[in-house]
Amino acid sequence: MLHKLPYTPAIVVDQGILDANIAAMADFAADHNLTLRPHAKTHKIAAIGQKQLAAGSPGLSVATLGEAQYFFDAGITDLFISYPIWPTTADGDVLTRLATDGNLAVGTDSVAAVHQLADVTEQQPGVEIMIELNSGHNRSGVFPDQVVPIAQAVRDRKMVLRGVFTFPGHSYAPGEHTSAAADEAQTLKAAERALQDAGFNVPVLSGGSTPSATATVAGGATEIRPGVYVFGDAQQLELGRIGFENIALTIAATVVSRHEAHGDAPARIIVDAGSKVLANDRAPWATGHGRVLGHPDAHITAVSEHHGTIRWESDELPAIGSRIQVIPNHVCVAVNLVDEVYVVDGTDILEQWQVGARGMNA
Amino acid sequence: MLHKLPYTPAIVVDQGILDANIAAMADFAADHNLTLRPHAKTHKIAAIGQKQLAAGSPGLSVATLGEAQYFFDAGITDLFISYPIWPTTADGDVLTRLATDGNLAVGTDSVAAVHQLADVTEQQPGVEIMIELNSGHNRSGVFPDQVVPIAQAVRDRKMVLRGVFTFPGHSYAPGEHTSAAADEAQTLKAAERALQDAGFNVPVLSGGSTPSATATVAGGATEIRPGVYVFGDAQQLELGRIGFENIALTIAATVVSRHEAHGDAPARIIVDAGSKVLANDRAPWATGHGRVLGHPDAHITAVSEHHGTIRWESDELPAIGSRIQVIPNHVCVAVNLVDEVYVVDGTDILEQWQVGARGMNA
Repeated sequence: MLHKLPYTPAIVVDQGILDANIAAMADFAADHNLTLRPHAKTHKIAAIGQKQLAAGSPGLSVATLGEAQYFFDAGITDLFISYPIWPTTADGDVLTRLATDGNLAVGTDSVAAVHQLADVTEQQPGVEIMIELNSGHNRSGVFPDQVVPIAQAVRDRKMVLRGVFTFPGHSYAPGEHTSAAADEAQTLKAAERALQDAGFNVPVLSGGSTPSATATVAGGATEIRPGVYVFGDAQQLELGRIGFENIALTIAATVVSRHEAHGDAPARIIVDAGSKVLANDRAPWATGHGRVLGHPDAHITAVSEHHGTIRWESDELPAIGSRIQVIPNHVCVAVNLVDEVYVVDGTDILEQWQVGARGMNA
Repeated sequence: MLHKLPYTPAIVVDQGILDANIAAMADFAADHNLTLRPHAKTHKIAAIGQKQLAAGSPGLSVATLGEAQYFFDAGITDLFISYPIWPTTADGDVLTRLATDGNLAVGTDSVAAVHQLADVTEQQPGVEIMIELNSGHNRSGVFPDQVVPIAQAVRDRKMVLRGVFTFPGHSYAPGEHTSAAADEAQTLKAAERALQDAGFNVPVLSGGSTPSATATVAGGATEIRPGVYVFGDAQQLELGRIGFENIALTIAATVVSRHEAHGDAPARIIVDAGSKVLANDRAPWATGHGRVLGHPDAHITAVSEHHGTIRWESDELPAIGSRIQVIPNHVCVAVNLVDEVYVVDGTDILEQWQVGARGMNA
């Protein structure tokens, strides 16, 4: 398959593994009576969103209004912008369209943003509100004891409160997925109680990163929003949440430089996949900048923009000019660096998918 | 100016500072009798390349064949692909066109790649060869004692040797720019001597990262290839190579979330510039994920894809909904994340430039 690719670096998606990953998370959600609303910022590809809906999801989560427009225009009209947006007047027109012709919710974590949303959409009730909670990640989101004034602003402006959501980002550390899932459940339930005590209905409690989603089993969320699970990546691998057999996405790369140890310089190969396609995400606990398919003891010890430096011990280093498959640490930011991906089935290239929402940061 | 931008996050280039940065490096090169061949992977914008040529450069350095094609088609035909490329047969046709209708050099660090270049271009002598040296960064490149066999392969295949080049990437550490520049000079001169002793002419000795370029003063390179200097970034700032007044590029961002200290969570703002526009480059010595223009004590303490978490002590945190200007750690990877930049002059938006070579990794 690798020799059939017209260029490197190129992103390759294995269709069989992708489909299995989508089915496994859908089965988990169904078994546990959870709504699965996958986060589409991971893939930004309409064809993958359609697969997720076909597997039982009612709609998608997205990070930006641009992503929402892209999926809406591709026919996926049930969307939750799980981000505390601050919309402009022009954004208000788009929100109104998506809410009128589809099913829309947006995130907020302040009274001020509720008023901004109400102002720019002229209090369009179809723009349903989800209040973001801080479940320990200390990013955006309020604590449960801060949630009621925001809900009151929603009511004052005659908007609709759909529920609360949180992202337990502290699940991205070794061994933390279970305690992060517990923090998530506790936070969601505490906010629900506070809101119910103040007279609000809270139909949706939304949580669930990829590491914590399958630890979300009882008493917390009604909805989960994992993203990375469709592809897998080196972070999930090194967190022990998946195996190499679950990796659906790799970056095909050419060995452009190869060196035996010489003087102070170690034996190494250089591939043409650097930070402009792998990105530069590296958690403190990561073993390097990514992994190599078929060579579990290989590690990407350094990246520059167009260079990935790879070392391993047990095997002969591959020949210059040969191609290998690299697994990025964080797949969401890698996909966003290319315009298209190659879909493969074993050794055959089936088709190309455009990364339609690439770069849609606004 | 910020309120005139139709959306955030958006990249903003200050034309006056850009022009001053281009002029200052051109003056330095002229004063020291160095050829300035700026690295265009930083900006990927034809209009900026034209400014660099107007300031006296004969041509540009690029990282990939795709970047070379983009600038060639924009009328900049003197190009050096300063990367050890492994070209496909299709690449050979492009190389031949660029060499026939322009002035082309390409990098290599192996006998095998010289043969590959000769094979796919049918020994097109216009594809001049630059041998890459390792001056201490231990990425691609050979040591001076390994250079002669590669030059012999160039001669055997009737190609033209233009010279040698190196990237002193170890200049990217506090206080290292002077010693890295010395390593660079020593390596270039040692390779020149080895090649001259073996009967080769070596017209060009090329070096110079942005930190080390202006430390390159005597006895080493004949050519420098800095890239970042056009814009500046937080890395250059924290390395002490530039001041805030030299920062030509910022990312306009909206404060979407604002929190006073509460429980375990510190006071912070969240802006809509995360790793999908700032990128995630962070050197071990960096103070955070970027800086804030006008707030020298502010630091981006964390990023996720669409969230930048910012803390500072001395001033009141800005209001939710307000806009600020963020300085990325590494500007080359930030520019590659957007399709267009806004060119401003003080408070006026002058025009938009397409990032024409964005994503051209191959």
